Formats: sequence, structure tokens, C-alpha cells
Amino acid sequence: MSNNLLTGKKGIIFGALNEMSIAWKVAERAVEEGATITLSNTPLAVRMGTTNELAQKLNATLIPADATSVEDLTEVFRQSTEVLGGKIDFVLHSIGMSPNVRKKRTYDDLDYDMLTSTLDISAISFHKMLQTAKKLDAINQYGSVVALTYMAAQRTMFGYNDMADAKAMLESIARSFGYIYGREKDVRINTISQSPTMTTAGSGVKGFDSLVDFAERMSPLGNASADDCANYCITLFSDLTRKVTMQNLYHDGGFSSMGMSYRAMEQYLKGFDFKDENGKIIYG
Amino acid sequence: MSNNLLTGKKGIIFGALNEMSIAWKVAERAVEEGATITLSNTPLAVRMGTTNELAQKLNATLIPADATSVEDLTEVFRQSTEVLGGKIDFVLHSIGMSPNVRKKRTYDDLDYDMLTSTLDISAISFHKMLQTAKKLDAINQYGSVVALTYMAAQRTMFGYNDMADAKAMLESIARSFGYIYGREKDVRINTISQSPTMTTAGSGVKGFDSLVDFAERMSPLGNASADDCANYCITLFSDLTRKVTMQNLYHDGGFSSMGMSYRAMEQYLKGFDFKDENGKIIYG
Amino acid sequence: MSNNLLTGKKGIIFGALNEMSIAWKVAERAVEEGATITLSNTPLAVRMGTTNELAQKLNATLIPADATSVEDLTEVFRQSTEVLGGKIDFVLHSIGMSPNVRKKRTYDDLDYDMLTSTLDISAISFHKMLQTAKKLDAINQYGSVVALTYMAAQRTMFGYNDMADAKAMLESIARSFGYIYGREKDVRINTISQSPTMTTAGSGVKGFDSLVDFAERMSPLGNASADDCANYCITLFSDLTRKVTMQNLYHDGGFSSMGMSYRAMEQYLKGFDFKDENGKIIYG
Amino acid sequence: MSNNLLTGKKGIIFGALNEMSIAWKVAERAVEEGATITLSNTPLAVRMGTTNELAQKLNATLIPADATSVEDLTEVFRQSTEVLGGKIDFVLHSIGMSPNVRKKRTYDDLDYDMLTSTLDISAISFHKMLQTAKKLDAINQYGSVVALTYMAAQRTMFGYNDMADAKAMLESIARSFGYIYGREKDVRINTISQSPTMTTAGSGVKGFDSLVDFAERMSPLGNASADDCANYCITLFSDLTRKVTMQNLYHDGGFSSMGMSYRAMEQYLKGFDFKDENGKIIYG
Repeated sequence: MSNNLLTGKKGIIFGALNEMSIAWKVAERAVEEGATITLSNTPLAVRMGTTNELAQKLNATLIPADATSVEDLTEVFRQSTEVLGGKIDFVLHSIGMSPNVRKKRTYDDLDYDMLTSTLDISAISFHKMLQTAKKLDAINQYGSVVALTYMAAQRTMFGYNDMADAKAMLESIARSFGYIYGREKDVRINTISQSPTMTTAGSGVKGFDSLVDFAERMSPLGNASADDCANYCITLFSDLTRKVTMQNLYHDGGFSSMGMSYRAMEQYLKGFDFKDENGKIIYG
Repeated sequence: MSNNLLTGKKGIIFGALNEMSIAWKVAERAVEEGATITLSNTPLAVRMGTTNELAQKLNATLIPADATSVEDLTEVFRQSTEVLGGKIDFVLHSIGMSPNVRKKRTYDDLDYDMLTSTLDISAISFHKMLQTAKKLDAINQYGSVVALTYMAAQRTMFGYNDMADAKAMLESIARSFGYIYGREKDVRINTISQSPTMTTAGSGVKGFDSLVDFAERMSPLGNASADDCANYCITLFSDLTRKVTMQNLYHDGGFSSMGMSYRAMEQYLKGFDFKDENGKIIYG
Repeated sequence: MSNNLLTGKKGIIFGALNEMSIAWKVAERAVEEGATITLSNTPLAVRMGTTNELAQKLNATLIPADATSVEDLTEVFRQSTEVLGGKIDFVLHSIGMSPNVRKKRTYDDLDYDMLTSTLDISAISFHKMLQTAKKLDAINQYGSVVALTYMAAQRTMFGYNDMADAKAMLESIARSFGYIYGREKDVRINTISQSPTMTTAGSGVKGFDSLVDFAERMSPLGNASADDCANYCITLFSDLTRKVTMQNLYHDGGFSSMGMSYRAMEQYLKGFDFKDENGKIIYG
Repeated sequence: MSNNLLTGKKGIIFGALNEMSIAWKVAERAVEEGATITLSNTPLAVRMGTTNELAQKLNATLIPADATSVEDLTEVFRQSTEVLGGKIDFVLHSIGMSPNVRKKRTYDDLDYDMLTSTLDISAISFHKMLQTAKKLDAINQYGSVVALTYMAAQRTMFGYNDMADAKAMLESIARSFGYIYGREKDVRINTISQSPTMTTAGSGVKGFDSLVDFAERMSPLGNASADDCANYCITLFSDLTRKVTMQNLYHDGGFSSMGMSYRAMEQYLKGFDFKDENGKIIYG
């Protein structure tokens, strides 16, 4: 169903790997809402994933690019404005990867070259994207840029490792650049702090499925899905949110404002042995 | 222009006094987006303001009610579901008043009966509204409730007085009740922390116009207007934000994430006497 | 052991009920650090608890007072300055009670008279205390006031009920009054957001022991005890923290900055049945 | 005056350049409170500044080291435990520098090699310090580590540039490592978010003196000085704060909780021309 919220708008979606990806859902919904888009992902991801299918389906140009390369990003914006026939109205940054996590280095045994990569891929790429776009003047006035992040930036999650620091930096970049791009071009920049989502990226994090279960029981509305996230992105790309900027927006069924839910505690308590000497369960 | 975001939805808008009111704009936009609504305000406000005009214009039933009275609120929900022909999908709480501010009592000389009124009108009314609705089961599954608040809840503004404490409590109620209404009925409850807005209510606060100027220069996108706020409300009432709950959402052109802007500092510095003995301006 | 951090200082400790009370520990430690103090609690609490013993032990005057009564508070400050021989240097507010919790009213079935009591006892009493002290000019320049609070003010805990809203308001009062008392008398006002602590007050909250266990496993340093809290209060009363004001300070072994710890998740997962068809535990 | 809060404790102070430095004050106060310490700074800073004088005065070993080098840091911890005769009890990280700021690159024209340096010097050095210490098991149980930060990590300050992102990352590292070092060794890790302070580092930031003036008028207690900060650090190094960890602690006279003070607004308004046609000042 479409509300034509993005009719006539042009966008770039970074990071759609396969149909589990949030970026994939955003791309689909954006087109459904009337936008024309281009897609971008790393050459490796393009080979490994199914972004090409998505491009075909949406009739969108796919521009392989390494988001840590200013040259590549320049090319993405140049080509996108060309094929879309004008400046860009919205951008999604859904990019993140930690070699330390992949190589199972714990947080007290980080490899610092890998940390540099984590930051470059997961955070600095966002700055490069924005700086490149601004230098090219490639984003329309009142444009909207969104990056996906995770609550580990504020509250430590075991196993999330150096991605937490990268996400903290990513959110800071949204504020820092949001000030400048806002005052000069009315472009707004926000991050969405999404529920743990079972994407290919998410499933690489240690104990992720357990976390998904816990979050589900903690959140009064349950976890937000990739589809939910796509809908939320549409509102942020639309003209209805023109004064929202420099915000980190929790999209998590309420998780971020929960200290403890009854449902999560109930599950937590099951792990205790509440049986008395006769095998009767003590805890009611 | 309409995106039919609220087609078929039923809503109640509390607090539209006159056409400067945010609630007024929300009512107009909600109807524009396809909703049918009822309006409610205190009997006094109905006499003093022009809510009747709005009701006529929007073909909406106006139900005078004291939002501190559970009986009155019961009547609002009862009548609304009746005239709208079903359960409610969205509610706006735009209600606040401090007798201490009106009577120019400073914060270190509060009258405690007046403080009780401030809280009852500006915060507890929100709880009463939610508790009443829930007891009547008057809100549809996936319904959305929004209350308007102000950043003084987090950061002290001189002159905002006991309204700051009331807003802090209001935001807490949104979280506390958001948990319960969410887990049981998937109803989401959020607050919008809006830029200082030149409404009849706002203009009663000491030094308000100065604050508006400062906020305007601090915010990269400038202050959010009542019209902007109405647009934002529409997104929160729509089905596109079903997993956003228990959040305090800053809608302020970026103000909340600013420490100091160049533009505000420039103005700030003008107040200093930067002239040397010959009358030449030294600074800048 | 004493570091003489409060030598020559005069203080008032509100809310010591029995030796489990945080206020009790603070009183003991304050005297140990060289302060002279008075104690205050409600007449009922004085009868039910053992505050008298503490008063004797510490050679401190006990002034029964209802902290919701401005007259009583006036008397506390008047008598305290008299018996201590001068203005007050520090105050502890450790007062909170919810009739709704006591009467097992759920948050969606609040009694509003009881809510008024919850707020009056748990939050407004703090404002009354400050306003009374300021009107009497009873606090020395550079004085320090601390109130105890709980993280439910930010993140909803099932069962904490209307106390969450009261704590949110309490923390707001600390900011609002901290601005005024700070600019005029350099008096600082802060709240300490303490780990769930097994006091007589705490144990009244539903599922409190489970929460204590969860918090213990989430917090890298474990929960902060009442003794720990007393030590922290000493630093805030001392001259070493003269520029800390209007802050809500988490004193919780790290809980507030945790999203999920390995230890808590481990316990959480025990509740699942991870055995395969042969009864072997699947989850490692 | 000493309270013997650090009697018998051993510490390392990173970043004392000259007597304006916060680290300098902390070193002096730590020794005054009974600690023995070592000092460390970059070889360049040692040549440019007067750290040697401080070392002599405090009878402390000065260990030149590049805090971005794991080898150098290893040497600092090795030598420190040797000369101090045991494991370390407290560490101060007061290190930060942005080549982009120095070279007057604006935030929308960052040099990315310089950004890498900013991060490496100002944030990753903190991780390297902690990881090195932990691998050497060089910090005692219940040890305390503090890093200095600035509110630009949360709220954008024009001119603070990529240091904002570095500080956001620094604060995240404090949380991420605080979890691990806490659970394994009870070591606490916090950051102090200090008022803008007129140190050699601070004065390099654009418009810094204006910001200091604004913060002074906004903060009810005025800005916290380097001396104030040293006192606050002492409390965090002492045994009285053993359960405080993973926190970002604002030490700023209340600035962080202010939206607008009367005094700052008064100055702000002076810049407007409030005179009528006869030269009379209109604004009262």
C-alpha cells in the first residue's frame, strides 16, 4: 500500500545485501512510496548477496562502491544524480562491520588495525558520505539522511565489542554534521536505533539470538522488524518530519525506556531452581 | 495536500484553543489526512477561545470537559466512540497550565495548592486520560497517543517554573503507561518535545520571546512551527510508526543536540562592548 | 575509618528508619567524618522504627516531622540550626512512599488521591524542604543537598508503579531548584540513583528480590549497597565536589550503562529448555 | 589541605603539560592526598611544556611516551609499577588533540588521515591504555580510571570539530571497557565532562573564550576550574566511590542541566538594539 509519501523524490540506499537486510526493505518501501532510487554496496557484497535481484526488481541502478573510499562515494553521488535526473532527496546508510568481531577478538584483546577498519567502515564512511555529498552539492534542500545504529552505543552489550564504539561515533557524526548541513542546506541527519534484527550482519554477533529473545520480552510492543524499520524510514524521508534533525531515534518497541518487564523477568526467573526438597516448584 | 495517512482513523484532539494552538493545526491536518475527530477543551477555554469555529469547520463534535475530571474524560471517550462510530485510533494531549506562573510566584516561592493544580492539569490529566480510555477499552489495538512537552523537563529554563516538573512527570507517565498499554493492547504512547512555540500558552512564560529568538539561532533548521508539529504528529498517528513507543521525541530543528551554534554566539557577543578607546569595534 | 571530610560541618538527615536504611548509614558515616547532625523522620516512622537508637548512638537530636508539612519542615530547620549552632551544610532527603503500591493498586488503576499522596511525600516534600530552607536562609554558602532516587524514573520497571513518576518529578525538582539555589547561594543539589537496595522501603516493591538479583548480575561491580551509598554521599557533602550540581548520579555498579551482561544472559537462558530429544543440553 | 584520601595509593597521570593543565592540578592534589605517582606525556610535550618541573616538585618519575603506541604504554605501566613498588590504583587520561582543528580544516572539509590521528590520540589511546594495563595485570582490584571529556560529545559546539566525535568515542570506550574491567577486576572507569577550561589545549578551539563566558553565565555555580576538577578526580580515585563506573560525570557548575539562565539571556539580549527613535532603551 502506498501513501505517495516520496512521490518524485530521489534516493540512494547503501547496504542492501539480501532480502533480510533492513536496507532492502527500505529500498522496496521507498519505491512503493513513489521514489526513484539507486542502490550501492561493496563489490564483495554485490557478489555475495543478491542486491542485483533487488536492483532489477526495483528498476534501480546498482553502483558498487567501497563506502570508505571518497572516490567511490563521489562516483555514487555523481552517477545517482545523473541517472535519477537531479539532486538527491534522501540517503540511507546501513553499513557496519567489525573485523575484530569476525575474527573473534575480544574487546580486551582488540587488534588496532582491525579497530581502524571497524571505525572506517562503520562510522567514518558516514562522514565521508556526507562530506562528499556536500562538496558536490548533491543533496537537495530539505533532504533527509538516515543511518542505522544500535543501543549498544549507550548501553554495553556483551559481545557487541568495538561496534559499540563505532556506533557511538556514528551517532556523534550525525549530530556534528547535522548542525552544518542543517544550517546551510536544511538537510536533516538522524540515526535510527533499531531493535536487534535478525539480518545477516546481526546474526554474526555473539549471543545475538538470546538478545533478540530478551529484547522481545522486554519491549511492550515486541521487537521492531526490518519491515517496521522501513516504514519508519519512510516517515523520516518524507516532508512531514522536516524539523527533526540530529536525533538518535529509538525504534525498538519501547525497549530503550524499559528497565524490566514482567515478561522478561518471568523468563529470567525460570532459570532458578525453585523446587523444594520434594521437587515442588516454590516460586509461584 | 493529503497522503491519506489517517484514512478511516478516529481521533480525539485535546487542547485546541485558537488558531495559534498546536492542537488546532493537528486537528486540521488529521482531518486532511482522512481522519474523523472530536475536539475537547475546558468549558472556560471553549468560551474564551474559538474552538467552536474549528469544530464547525472540521465538522467535528466539540465535547467540553475538564481533563482533570475522570467523569468528564469518561464522557469524552464515551461520546467520541459514539459519534465516531467505533474505538479511537489516536489521541493528542496538548494541555498545560501553571497557576504559579500566572500569579507570578517564583519557583522558590511556590504556592503548594497551585503546584497541585499545575500537576493535575499538566501531567496527571494525561494519566487520567489513559486510565479512563483503558478502562473503557476505548482505544483500538495499535492506537497512538501523543502528548506535547518541552525541553525544560530536562534542562532548566529560567521562568518556566513548576511547569518543568510537570513536564518531567508527564514524560514519565508516557513511559510508565506506555509499558502497560503497549504490552496489553499494542497502544503506543509518546511525547513530542517541541521548539518554543508562540501559542497563547507559550506567550505567558517570562522571557518567552527572547527564548524563541535564542532557540531559532541555535537550531540549525530553526524552530519547528505549530504547522511542522502537526505534520510530525500525523506520522506518529499513522501506521508507519507502530513500533515507536515510550519515547520523548525532540521536534526542534536540532536545538536539543546543540551546545552552541555560531549564529547564537554571534548574537551573544554583540552585547559586549568591543570598542577600543577610539570607538572602533575590536571584535570581529 | 575517617578522612575528616566533614569536619565542622552541620547536617540534617531525613528518612533513617532502621539500620537497613540508607539514611541510617549516611548518618553514621557523616558523624564519623566529623559532622554534627540532626535526624528527622515522621512521627509514625519514629514509633515504628529505631531512629531513636541511632540518635542516641550518634548523640544527635531527633526531630519528628511530617516532610509534607511546611510548618514541620520549618521547625526542623529552625531547631537544627539552633542545636547545631549555625547554618546547615548538608541535607539528605531519603523519603518516599506510595499508597498505591501499598494498597496494591496497579498503575492502570491508580487511586488519584493516593497518587497525590505519593507525589506529596516522595517528590514535593523535596521542594518544600528546599523552599523552606531558602526562605529561612538556613543553608550555608556551598552547602550540598542530596536526594535518593531510582532508575525507574528513566526506565520503566514493572511494579514500581507511580513511584516512577514521583522519582522523575523529584529529579526535576533537583534541577529546577538547583539552578536557583546555585546562582544565589552556591548551594548544590543532586540526586543519587542508587542500585535496588534491600531496605524496608525497597522490599515493599513487587518482585523486588528478583530485580536485585538481575541488577547484581547485570552490573559489572555488582549492586551498590547502603554502605557504599553512604560513602558516595560523603563525597557529595564534602568540599571536593563543589561544582557538581543539578545532576542525577548513577550509583549502581555500572547497571545504568549496561544493555546486557554475559552473566545476566547466562541466567536468563537457563530458563529455556535446551535439551534435545536425548535429554542432552544443547545450549553450550 | 589533605584528607589522606589516597594514602598508600599509586597512580599514573597522563597529560600534564604545564601548570594550566588539569592533569597538573590532579597530580599535585593526588600527591597531597598521600599518593605516589608517575607522570607521562609525549616526548614533544615534555620538551615544549614544563612537566619536568612538576616531576621534580612532586618527586615523581616522568616517563615520556606516545599514548598511541602500545609499546610505549607497556613501558609506562612496567616502569610505573616498578618505581612505585606495586600495582597501580588510579590512572588519569587527559589526552586529546585534533590535527584538523590545528590546521583549521572545517568539519565539512576534514582530512581523513588527520581524523584518524584525532581518533588515535584522543580516543583509541584510552583503549590502548586500558588493554595494555589489563594484559599486564597492572591495575589493582578496585582501581579507578578517569578520562577527561567535554559536553560536545552530546551537544554540538561550533568549532569543536572532529574532537566531538573523538570524545563520543572516548566515552563509549569507558563504558565498553568498564564492563569488562569491572566484572573481572572491580576496576571502575569513568569520564568527567568538564566545563570549558582555559588550558593550553582548550584555547586552541575556535571561539573558546566566548564559550567560556557563555558557560559561566549559564552555570548556576559558574564554570568548574582545573582546581575544582582535581578535587573531583580525588573523590573518584578514592575508596569512597567504588561502585561508580561506566558513567560520564558532568562537572560543570550545572551547565549540562541548563536550558537557559537569566544571566546568560540578559547578556544575549544586550546585543539587540532596543532603543526607540528617541534613543530610549525599550527593553526593560
